[in-house]
Amino acid sequence: MNNDPVAPAKGKLAVLLPGLGAVGTTVIAGVLAARKGLARPIGSLTQYARMGDDPNAPRLRDAMPLAHLDDIVFGGWDIFDEDCYTAAKNAGVLEDRHLDPIREELEAIRPMSAVFDQDYVRNLSGPNVKEGANKMELAEALIDDIESFMADNGCDRAVSVWCASTEVHVNLGPVHSSLEAFEAGLLESDPAISPTMIYAYAHIKAGVPFLNGAPNTALDTPAIIELAEREGVPIAGKDFKTGQTLIKTILAPGFAARMLGVSGWYSTNILGNRDGAVLDDPGSFKTKEQSKLSVLESILDADAYPEIYEEMDHKVRIDYYPPRGDNKEGWDNIDIFGWMDYPMQIKVNFLCRDSILAAPVVLDLALFGDLASRAGMGGVQDWLSFYFKSPQPVAGEVPVHDLFAQRDLLFDTLYALKERG
Amino acid sequence: MNNDPVAPAKGKLAVLLPGLGAVGTTVIAGVLAARKGLARPIGSLTQYARMGDDPNAPRLRDAMPLAHLDDIVFGGWDIFDEDCYTAAKNAGVLEDRHLDPIREELEAIRPMSAVFDQDYVRNLSGPNVKEGANKMELAEALIDDIESFMADNGCDRAVSVWCASTEVHVNLGPVHSSLEAFEAGLLESDPAISPTMIYAYAHIKAGVPFLNGAPNTALDTPAIIELAEREGVPIAGKDFKTGQTLIKTILAPGFAARMLGVSGWYSTNILGNRDGAVLDDPGSFKTKEQSKLSVLESILDADAYPEIYEEMDHKVRIDYYPPRGDNKEGWDNIDIFGWMDYPMQIKVNFLCRDSILAAPVVLDLALFGDLASRAGMGGVQDWLSFYFKSPQPVAGEVPVHDLFAQRDLLFDTLYALKERG
Amino acid sequence: MNNDPVAPAKGKLAVLLPGLGAVGTTVIAGVLAARKGLARPIGSLTQYARMGDDPNAPRLRDAMPLAHLDDIVFGGWDIFDEDCYTAAKNAGVLEDRHLDPIREELEAIRPMSAVFDQDYVRNLSGPNVKEGANKMELAEALIDDIESFMADNGCDRAVSVWCASTEVHVNLGPVHSSLEAFEAGLLESDPAISPTMIYAYAHIKAGVPFLNGAPNTALDTPAIIELAEREGVPIAGKDFKTGQTLIKTILAPGFAARMLGVSGWYSTNILGNRDGAVLDDPGSFKTKEQSKLSVLESILDADAYPEIYEEMDHKVRIDYYPPRGDNKEGWDNIDIFGWMDYPMQIKVNFLCRDSILAAPVVLDLALFGDLASRAGMGGVQDWLSFYFKSPQPVAGEVPVHDLFAQRDLLFDTLYALKERG
Amino acid sequence: MNNDPVAPAKGKLAVLLPGLGAVGTTVIAGVLAARKGLARPIGSLTQYARMGDDPNAPRLRDAMPLAHLDDIVFGGWDIFDEDCYTAAKNAGVLEDRHLDPIREELEAIRPMSAVFDQDYVRNLSGPNVKEGANKMELAEALIDDIESFMADNGCDRAVSVWCASTEVHVNLGPVHSSLEAFEAGLLESDPAISPTMIYAYAHIKAGVPFLNGAPNTALDTPAIIELAEREGVPIAGKDFKTGQTLIKTILAPGFAARMLGVSGWYSTNILGNRDGAVLDDPGSFKTKEQSKLSVLESILDADAYPEIYEEMDHKVRIDYYPPRGDNKEGWDNIDIFGWMDYPMQIKVNFLCRDSILAAPVVLDLALFGDLASRAGMGGVQDWLSFYFKSPQPVAGEVPVHDLFAQRDLLFDTLYALKERG
Repeated sequence: MNNDPVAPAKGKLAVLLPGLGAVGTTVIAGVLAARKGLARPIGSLTQYARMGDDPNAPRLRDAMPLAHLDDIVFGGWDIFDEDCYTAAKNAGVLEDRHLDPIREELEAIRPMSAVFDQDYVRNLSGPNVKEGANKMELAEALIDDIESFMADNGCDRAVSVWCASTEVHVNLGPVHSSLEAFEAGLLESDPAISPTMIYAYAHIKAGVPFLNGAPNTALDTPAIIELAEREGVPIAGKDFKTGQTLIKTILAPGFAARMLGVSGWYSTNILGNRDGAVLDDPGSFKTKEQSKLSVLESILDADAYPEIYEEMDHKVRIDYYPPRGDNKEGWDNIDIFGWMDYPMQIKVNFLCRDSILAAPVVLDLALFGDLASRAGMGGVQDWLSFYFKSPQPVAGEVPVHDLFAQRDLLFDTLYALKERG
Repeated sequence: MNNDPVAPAKGKLAVLLPGLGAVGTTVIAGVLAARKGLARPIGSLTQYARMGDDPNAPRLRDAMPLAHLDDIVFGGWDIFDEDCYTAAKNAGVLEDRHLDPIREELEAIRPMSAVFDQDYVRNLSGPNVKEGANKMELAEALIDDIESFMADNGCDRAVSVWCASTEVHVNLGPVHSSLEAFEAGLLESDPAISPTMIYAYAHIKAGVPFLNGAPNTALDTPAIIELAEREGVPIAGKDFKTGQTLIKTILAPGFAARMLGVSGWYSTNILGNRDGAVLDDPGSFKTKEQSKLSVLESILDADAYPEIYEEMDHKVRIDYYPPRGDNKEGWDNIDIFGWMDYPMQIKVNFLCRDSILAAPVVLDLALFGDLASRAGMGGVQDWLSFYFKSPQPVAGEVPVHDLFAQRDLLFDTLYALKERG
Repeated sequence: MNNDPVAPAKGKLAVLLPGLGAVGTTVIAGVLAARKGLARPIGSLTQYARMGDDPNAPRLRDAMPLAHLDDIVFGGWDIFDEDCYTAAKNAGVLEDRHLDPIREELEAIRPMSAVFDQDYVRNLSGPNVKEGANKMELAEALIDDIESFMADNGCDRAVSVWCASTEVHVNLGPVHSSLEAFEAGLLESDPAISPTMIYAYAHIKAGVPFLNGAPNTALDTPAIIELAEREGVPIAGKDFKTGQTLIKTILAPGFAARMLGVSGWYSTNILGNRDGAVLDDPGSFKTKEQSKLSVLESILDADAYPEIYEEMDHKVRIDYYPPRGDNKEGWDNIDIFGWMDYPMQIKVNFLCRDSILAAPVVLDLALFGDLASRAGMGGVQDWLSFYFKSPQPVAGEVPVHDLFAQRDLLFDTLYALKERG
Repeated sequence: MNNDPVAPAKGKLAVLLPGLGAVGTTVIAGVLAARKGLARPIGSLTQYARMGDDPNAPRLRDAMPLAHLDDIVFGGWDIFDEDCYTAAKNAGVLEDRHLDPIREELEAIRPMSAVFDQDYVRNLSGPNVKEGANKMELAEALIDDIESFMADNGCDRAVSVWCASTEVHVNLGPVHSSLEAFEAGLLESDPAISPTMIYAYAHIKAGVPFLNGAPNTALDTPAIIELAEREGVPIAGKDFKTGQTLIKTILAPGFAARMLGVSGWYSTNILGNRDGAVLDDPGSFKTKEQSKLSVLESILDADAYPEIYEEMDHKVRIDYYPPRGDNKEGWDNIDIFGWMDYPMQIKVNFLCRDSILAAPVVLDLALFGDLASRAGMGGVQDWLSFYFKSPQPVAGEVPVHDLFAQRDLLFDTLYALKERG
């Protein structure tokens, strides 16, 4: 990190969302409604949290040079050619009383055509898809989209947060090992290059910070990291920390703090939205499962505490269950043990709303991504680990999963930025 | 805190427990079994936690000059004249396979006669009770007990952890306002002086650190604080943080970290042991309820965040339900809200074992209380807040409930002590 | 039961509801919407159940001479002078999309002034209350109301279902022991005569069947039974079987069928509507608790099966918890035991909606009450036990709680009525 | 059914169990302990239920000519060559305090070598397995076993209850279509003939009633039915109704009785015993899943009530989770809807013990199977549906799943048998 003052947040900020479905439209509707004083963006640290313990300490939005909600212009891509009002209605997350007053503004936001390939998301298809001679052409089309959008809307800066679907698991290979190989792969339409990678490449090339809300492999490839560092563009990922995993990274540090053993942790999720349909495909499920399984290992550290964490049995299930709609529900059974190894059980049933929990994460990531950009911080932003199920560490570090350690990391960075003025 | 090196843990340490019921006998049995390698004192930071993040950092028991388990001699008081083996069998916490191999040692530990008054614990009575002309005489009898016990068992030091029942709520009055008034009250057997206060007075007078595991008012009176400071004796309380409240102080910091609103938190407990029978009396329940209700306020700070915590409805129920035995069970319904005020719910069902969770707390408090004594730290030990439902702050401070903030406080103190050598 | 054919359901039926709050307005709105084809009266046996196992057997509404939904005219009494649209909005049970299309019809239904006395319902008060020199005058005013309502609305018949609040427990005394004593008590405004009793008296005197949806004592007094038999008016009660108790009378017969033991059943309820506020008063709670506690005894029969049911510990809690609104929630912990006395546990969390479950019960009771009247069946209708938490038996019988036994009783009566033609 | 008096239960009854694992040893230990007055066979209708509603009505064991517990001699087959004491210890179901007093008797019961083929149960293997030139030879070896066992133990009669593992799903083909084809298949070791089928064939040939506690296809093939009818041997199956499915067939009739809609039913099971390991194989899981999925269809009848049951989404998960041991645990989420289609949810968490629930089922099936044999009732015994997840109907009938309808069927048959004297 350099020591120059952070550049101020002047002008308009384009917030570009690949994926204008349940999560994307919920973010947009919430910000539009909040601007009119019709709704509260609860869950957003940038809007609510204070810089310090004092009850009168300033909110982050006032303490730090963050973009103001009024200065955001939303755009995005989707494979369905529906305006954001129609998409929000179909998503079934928000009630009419919230959508009706902002209907016109939502209708005005229409998705740009998406880069999409059903090989990576088998249970989904849609008409609003780009065509190109090769994957490099698709990347260039995205760069054109970004530039046109910014010009059309008079934006000074842009930031992008991936809000689209989980792709099938992609094994890393030579094509991901360097930027050079990756760019050659784009030209040859290498099958190991997924749509998410194309988006990431295009945004970074266009100088736009890119934050990845799905468990898709993209930002965590050597090629993309190389590009982000070379271009000085912030990146961070991956997989929004919401729902069951959020609760896990709250509870597990508590068990560890009290040195309580954990012999098993069984988690099942039922969800009925488009996300659920996508995860009903084993390929996409595997990507998600790996993301969800990883969180406990670093918190319940079997290296340091083999006697209480070495034998832990950790299982994660995700089931597509249409009656639940967007209201994802988790049930966890946690088997703990204490004094003299006597067992105890904890059951957690979380009746959550996926998009409601994800929306403030998207907003914060957009504003912090833009802040990092103005602060000249290129490459991996591990201080944003707080928001991710699979936080990407900087080279040589291990990921931090403990929500409270993540929070410390976030605030330490903010204080450091503040010192720079 | 002075800067002299901490005195080493030489010789034997008497660990005196007022109350040799479910919790007391579970602690004793566990330590005896652990000494023989027959059980593991899981949940104890002194025995398991490491001094630092390194997987190979030393355990607290090795990093700090703590008493060794082998040097502990257990004693205590109880209104039932049962040896610890019989009491443990009646408590029904531990299985025969754990009790049988240490039966002889347990049988050798018999309770001294207790200071007890049914006005303070209405649903309990027992034969092994001291008589005295006034409460000062009872205090003196306790001091005699302590001194005899130490002499008989060749102990160099002693420490005491209250493991007996919850008393009815006692309103503070003039008699508690100064040591002078309190000592006059002892002579006059003032009804506002409860048995817990008499124990606290006696121990501190005898120079023995006193830690309070019940929600009873005693250490948090001006009179007792004055005495502890004058005598340079460590005190800390109150009410062991176990079960439902432990989970609360883990979850609530997570909600606050993510700026999620909380509109309601309903908690019910069912328990069937002697503790449950005692709490079936409204007077004792009120004492416990206040202790349990206080934990959320400082974590979900309505002063700093009125928009998300001001309207919170917090209810706590405790029901005596004999089929549950010692296996206290909690059910929490938590109503949270996020983006645009959309509501979500979390249900937590904790099938816990009260004594199993309390036992390592007792052990740690005993060892840390003794450490503080050798470090010359008199008065309130707020760095032990980690272990209490109602942590007693030092004068002028507010209590810290957040388990993770409490943990930081604990370790900061340990590091500071370590620096002293 | 006589053997004459049942009189046909000619003309209009007044359905009169003492209490036009959450339950009452939900019933009315549902029937109005169903008539327009805008909603389905799910949960109503009269509208959905079939007369026989054949998938093509006729629905009860077609198989039996029941009043048609189109022939119902709704009216009622309430202490709040709000039309049914306003009351339904305040109750917060139904969404605008259901209320808006029938707004005009709902607004046209305004409550008649109520007989009310805060001595019986301490946590409630309202302005729309009758005054009278004594309780007999109040009864007469109700009779006038009924007659005027029927005349004004061109109704041929009427039936009444109590949908108002739970009153404090009233001890039975001499005034309830005979009709003569009761009528004398009305004239003297005897304090042991509650508003529910006055409504019951008035309706029966007016020849209108009266069904009691609250646990209030009224129909189960010798005086009222005497009147109902003398006048040949059907009565049935009491306390709508909804929510937790409904589940209990489903599960308990299952345990009994399999001869599984039950050592404990702990039930807690949280609810936030007006009903919850009323039950926050210990007097009203006691009435409700007795109703809820009684259901297990006859199903888990300790006389026949002492070895498995004699020791059962049954506890019921009801807590007022405003965040829940009308969505009453129950949590049950059931301790069962099987082979060799090994214990098992079942936890049931019911996120129910009180008024949604009660509404079809009200509709069915109204239609069956009217049917019974046309069939010449005066006095206690124990065949309607299916709908009640505390089913009132006919003289000399014990109440039947098992839902499946209740269902058999209901259908046996319907078949018998059908035989009469 | 003929009308002759039922033959009396004279002499000793061999109860033969294919599978001496958790369930088998729990049955045996319980009966042995009950004989000595050391344990109670709770959950057994034959031992506890009464013949009639009168609290003093005789128990089934006294009202009907059932074999007495004292007259049972236990035997069986298993692939592990462990005596029943060792097997019971390994199963971890029963505590030492129950096993120790009957250790000698348990040790005396050793398994005969089993017919087993890992093609049908992939996650299991053991040494105590029969060899034979073809499957007919294996069947004949079993018949020899049965005859030798009865002779060695002086038994007059025998009955067999399958307590072994779930096999992979076997598609029915020509070999199962007639007894002739089946016997040819045995000689040719047709791969479509599973071990369960061989056991069924052998027992029926030996005149021994065979009851099937697993979901394996065997008794429900035309070939075996033909044999059972020809030989006049009672058969019944399949898959013991325990745990989650038991609760389902209790709850679902309740929803149907109240005409409440069901939009979804999600069930997950976690279990850690040998049964769980077996079901971790997709082949065995499929067999079990089909058995578990079928139960709701006939109770929540979409033909009769399409408006409330047609759209139901029913999902069943079984996960192998070793920390749970034999204590199978189920979690159900049930989405119901009522008045005006408003949704409600029920969550059921069943902390059950598989073998504890299965053991009384085994005992009852053995005693009723023997009774049927003495009553001359050959072929399918659908009156035992009460005990099965997938009850086998007699030809031309549909299976009955409703627990209460099943109970009626059971008792109707008992009353009919009683009439025969």
